Amino acid sequence: MRRFAIIGKKAAASPDFSLDDLPATSGRLDVLLRCVRAAMLVSHGIRRDVTVYLVLRGGQDAPRVVRIDGGEARFLRPDERSLGTLLKKTLAHASSEPRFCPIRPGIAIASGDIDVVLADAPLARLFLLEEGALDMRAERDLGATDVLVFVGDHEGADAESRSRLVECGARSLSVGPISIHAEDAIAVVLNEMDRRAFRILDSGTPLGDDPHTLI
Amino acid sequence: MRRFAIIGKKAAASPDFSLDDLPATSGRLDVLLRCVRAAMLVSHGIRRDVTVYLVLRGGQDAPRVVRIDGGEARFLRPDERSLGTLLKKTLAHASSEPRFCPIRPGIAIASGDIDVVLADAPLARLFLLEEGALDMRAERDLGATDVLVFVGDHEGADAESRSRLVECGARSLSVGPISIHAEDAIAVVLNEMDRRAFRILDSGTPLGDDPHTLI
Repeated sequence: MRRFAIIGKKAAASPDFSLDDLPATSGRLDVLLRCVRAAMLVSHGIRRDVTVYLVLRGGQDAPRVVRIDGGEARFLRPDERSLGTLLKKTLAHASSEPRFCPIRPGIAIASGDIDVVLADAPLARLFLLEEGALDMRAERDLGATDVLVFVGDHEGADAESRSRLVECGARSLSVGPISIHAEDAIAVVLNEMDRRAFRILDSGTPLGDDPHTLI
Repeated sequence: MRRFAIIGKKAAASPDFSLDDLPATSGRLDVLLRCVRAAMLVSHGIRRDVTVYLVLRGGQDAPRVVRIDGGEARFLRPDERSLGTLLKKTLAHASSEPRFCPIRPGIAIASGDIDVVLADAPLARLFLLEEGALDMRAERDLGATDVLVFVGDHEGADAESRSRLVECGARSLSVGPISIHAEDAIAVVLNEMDRRAFRILDSGTPLGDDPHTLI
């Protein structure tokens, strides 16, 4: 299982945002929606082995966590407006339980913050994407069978979350020399995970000698 | 200069699409807009060395090419609706010249297809992203100073475009073992280019020995 938790420091935990202006009305929920697409969708399909947690800390109902399970989810569309509509409907449910309550196939919601996420994946190897850390290409455990990667929103992870994650054993990873958007970082990490799964890692293959062909 | 050309086989070349339902009314312009974000935007900024070409083959005014030059563009926002609004305004210009006519800073439009793109980058090393090709990590020239990467939309590149590009010397590259969205492929390629620029390539660095720290 590959899990991604995206922390939205001001992202709406309630449905009172406008689909016509997500960036200005939803606490940048648009960033998180793009992360959902990058984490869960591939060409003409859903990554069935991926679960995404959206940690929503904005608005009156915060904090809440929406969980999207690729193994069960149906009809996920890639565009922001469709994903925004899905979130709006999900957040309309008044659940305030500190455990995940199913809303529709593959979609569940819980009241709480990152501890709810951690409790849902007790055996997962924990990582936190952040600048200045070890290069993910050098992290052997990124290919583990149960991995939970925390990602900050457009402002990065806050100090308190970071401390809590490190306390739980999370290791920091960097994806490259440029500070990129969260959704792009997820795409890059998944590419590395895919390469591990298919054992395609040798960036140093000499040209013309044994260039491997990818599927 | 890093250049990306995204071929939208049915993407609207005219402004008669709805921002409220981009996927259904614009010939999947939403795919191309997400490619613009992935190619041009980083955390809190624009990649000044990136130019994106959107090859629009759908609707009555097709084919047209919109060029977005990161060195000149201003106020690019990451969300699909904002980028859709920018495209709608750009496409409202009735230009039918077979050369790029500036519309606003960094944004230009031309009548024509991929040959207009090729003519705009006569010295660029050409690549085409597609499945079943050489792994990009093994392609030395991806780090060249002037690179033009062609990317298909959600249906991939058509046979005719492919033939024309190969005729012009384009080399095919694959990004990984899973068929991913065009915007994710761009994010992965840019990560590899960034690593080349910063000389960070050694995926094989032994853990604990000399793990390099990224910025």
